[in-house]
Amino acid sequence: MSEAKNAFYAQSGGVTAVINASACGVIETARKHPSKIANVYAGRNGIIGALTEDLIDTSQESDSAIAALRHTPSGAFGSCRHKLKSLEENRAEYERLIEVFKAHNIGYFFYNGGGDSQDTAHKVSQIGESLGYPITAVGIPKTVDNDLPITDNCPGFGSVAKYVAVSIREAAFDVASMAKTSTKVFVMEVMGRHAGWIAAASGLACEKEGDAPHIILFPEIEFDKPAFLQKVKHSVDNYGYCALVVSEGVRNPDGQFLAEAGGKDAFGHAQLGGVAPVIAQMIKDELGYKYHWAVADYLQRAARHIASKTDVEQAYALGQAAVQLAIDGQNAVMPTVVRTSDNPYQWEIGSCNLADVANVEKMMPRDYITEDGFGITEKCRTYLQPLIAGEDYPPFKNGLPDYVELKNAPVAKKLNTEFAI
Amino acid sequence: MSEAKNAFYAQSGGVTAVINASACGVIETARKHPSKIANVYAGRNGIIGALTEDLIDTSQESDSAIAALRHTPSGAFGSCRHKLKSLEENRAEYERLIEVFKAHNIGYFFYNGGGDSQDTAHKVSQIGESLGYPITAVGIPKTVDNDLPITDNCPGFGSVAKYVAVSIREAAFDVASMAKTSTKVFVMEVMGRHAGWIAAASGLACEKEGDAPHIILFPEIEFDKPAFLQKVKHSVDNYGYCALVVSEGVRNPDGQFLAEAGGKDAFGHAQLGGVAPVIAQMIKDELGYKYHWAVADYLQRAARHIASKTDVEQAYALGQAAVQLAIDGQNAVMPTVVRTSDNPYQWEIGSCNLADVANVEKMMPRDYITEDGFGITEKCRTYLQPLIAGEDYPPFKNGLPDYVELKNAPVAKKLNTEFAI
Repeated sequence: MSEAKNAFYAQSGGVTAVINASACGVIETARKHPSKIANVYAGRNGIIGALTEDLIDTSQESDSAIAALRHTPSGAFGSCRHKLKSLEENRAEYERLIEVFKAHNIGYFFYNGGGDSQDTAHKVSQIGESLGYPITAVGIPKTVDNDLPITDNCPGFGSVAKYVAVSIREAAFDVASMAKTSTKVFVMEVMGRHAGWIAAASGLACEKEGDAPHIILFPEIEFDKPAFLQKVKHSVDNYGYCALVVSEGVRNPDGQFLAEAGGKDAFGHAQLGGVAPVIAQMIKDELGYKYHWAVADYLQRAARHIASKTDVEQAYALGQAAVQLAIDGQNAVMPTVVRTSDNPYQWEIGSCNLADVANVEKMMPRDYITEDGFGITEKCRTYLQPLIAGEDYPPFKNGLPDYVELKNAPVAKKLNTEFAI
Repeated sequence: MSEAKNAFYAQSGGVTAVINASACGVIETARKHPSKIANVYAGRNGIIGALTEDLIDTSQESDSAIAALRHTPSGAFGSCRHKLKSLEENRAEYERLIEVFKAHNIGYFFYNGGGDSQDTAHKVSQIGESLGYPITAVGIPKTVDNDLPITDNCPGFGSVAKYVAVSIREAAFDVASMAKTSTKVFVMEVMGRHAGWIAAASGLACEKEGDAPHIILFPEIEFDKPAFLQKVKHSVDNYGYCALVVSEGVRNPDGQFLAEAGGKDAFGHAQLGGVAPVIAQMIKDELGYKYHWAVADYLQRAARHIASKTDVEQAYALGQAAVQLAIDGQNAVMPTVVRTSDNPYQWEIGSCNLADVANVEKMMPRDYITEDGFGITEKCRTYLQPLIAGEDYPPFKNGLPDYVELKNAPVAKKLNTEFAI
């Protein structure tokens, strides 16, 4: 074991229902290769844990606790929103990383996150060359926004996708029951400030004429109020009700978020947020229909209880693959999901260069959205369908999901220096 | 079969994840007693279907379609919010009911709903005596608000309870991950305009010191802003974050709903609604914490995918029992859930008089809420715990719950008269 190095693993950005499944894949795989990886140290609250020498000793966790990460949502070690600047802009941060890595014999760097995080991983992968510290840096994709390039899809997305499709179906059944004498319109707001992938996924619930969602509002499509209202009316006239999904990032033709269009409250604050109530009120004002609205917010990305089995399996496999790539000596790479067949759905793990991932955002192709801008096309459905396939229920205890909370014991500090973030 | 009468069944008020399980219990049981009940006619959109002679012929539905009602949320025949006035106030409605019942040989009346609906069922049960039309009227309890008297609990409630407890646990795991550099406060709004049962159920997710929800705001407890803010701060100081649940019915000391306290928008409309954003903004203004908020709305009561097994079983059993009571000749009654043991949880079906149920609202006992007004007591936990026990997943197809949509074929009209509601 003398040659073995320690590994650093951290979670970054908004967490998901399955990012811990990737952590599980990383740690379980590392444990199978003690001659290469002595121990996995997790960053407490992401990269901040590395900068502040606040490391978590995952060897203190039992095999069963690590296995339970697979069915536990959120970031078990804490995440953070902290983007490393470039080496030129903030050399001190990189030198600090090296100082901490050296002190703890860290030779592997695993960073589990979205576009910004892959950029960070890429920067770290370069410090061997630029600052003379040998490290193998591997990114692990994660983002509910599904906006990373190259990989067919991103872990975390499939489960949000399933949640929103299940939720709009259920709520639509409810509204359909009530529509005769009560609620005629239901508005569900989902995440997606820039890309409409999550909103699009709700469209999977619509399997035949008349099914909800009757309308989807995408951030990619400029909001057309008259066309929208006409479609709401058409839905109520023809199906008795209208259940619609709106992406938080929908904008007016002038580029302003609709969520910000509601004005000020009594205290002079900007409208408290939420595009769903804005849309609902607009419908009430213009068409007079009684409405209900929901904002799922964190519920959608934390909903491990209704996670997609495909998503869980891919999240785990990508964590596993990251370790394999690292012990094979590959630096500056990210494992990817490669789709080999739509139907039957088949996938395998590939890999790509971090340089090609960093700071590239994958938007919804225009031909995934129907011509009128209010729905998804068959092409989009073919892409999305397999990502929500299968259920992977967590164990339950006392009627509730039995999620693990780790001990998260600190690694003893070796440096006597503070580092201000 | 010459003696057999037809039965009328209708769903009333806000629908739930399990009201169709009661419908399933009614129809499956009726089908076993063809010598007593020839056919079950369902009211399209509740009692309105009876008044307008818009009846659904459930005999057109296959056994498997009826069986699938057990796992399908919402009201399969449509519901309505229409309360019958008293006989003195609107004799025409009762005479019309008798006209329709007589035309379709209806001798049994099953009404599946909350307090108002039990009142309607009670009024109908009296028309034999008052208007000379012999009918056996049986109520079937249903309400997510859990506010019916006598019955230990109400079908529909256990599943909402499970949904909110699961959701706050999941969201809290998420916030805990993010709290170091981002969101510190999460506010989840739940239903309950008058009674805090649903909010209380979220407290089941708190199983040890520090678990979410850290604060619950009940409609029964006058909102105390300073004490509330102090508790939010305590939670963030001690646990790193605060995840709280607020009932839509929370009021200021002056009796005003907090949801209505947000003022007017740019168009002069009252605040678009939702107490969650009001609470979140208050915390931001006073304590400066970054927040997220969610409003589950219909998602919570439609969430059949995470229904409580106990709830589903009780909903079915009550439908079954209603038919048994009716064919035993009992009029003006409602089957109830009788709890015979807390631990192990045991229950059986009892019955009570509709006269004792109608228009009585069961509020949360004060000793179910902690002294400071922000949590639930052990006594409350003992009551609530079994109601969320067990999972009862629906079948899935293409990654989505496979809910049934009935044919809902109309019964041929026999009257040539219109009736205006």
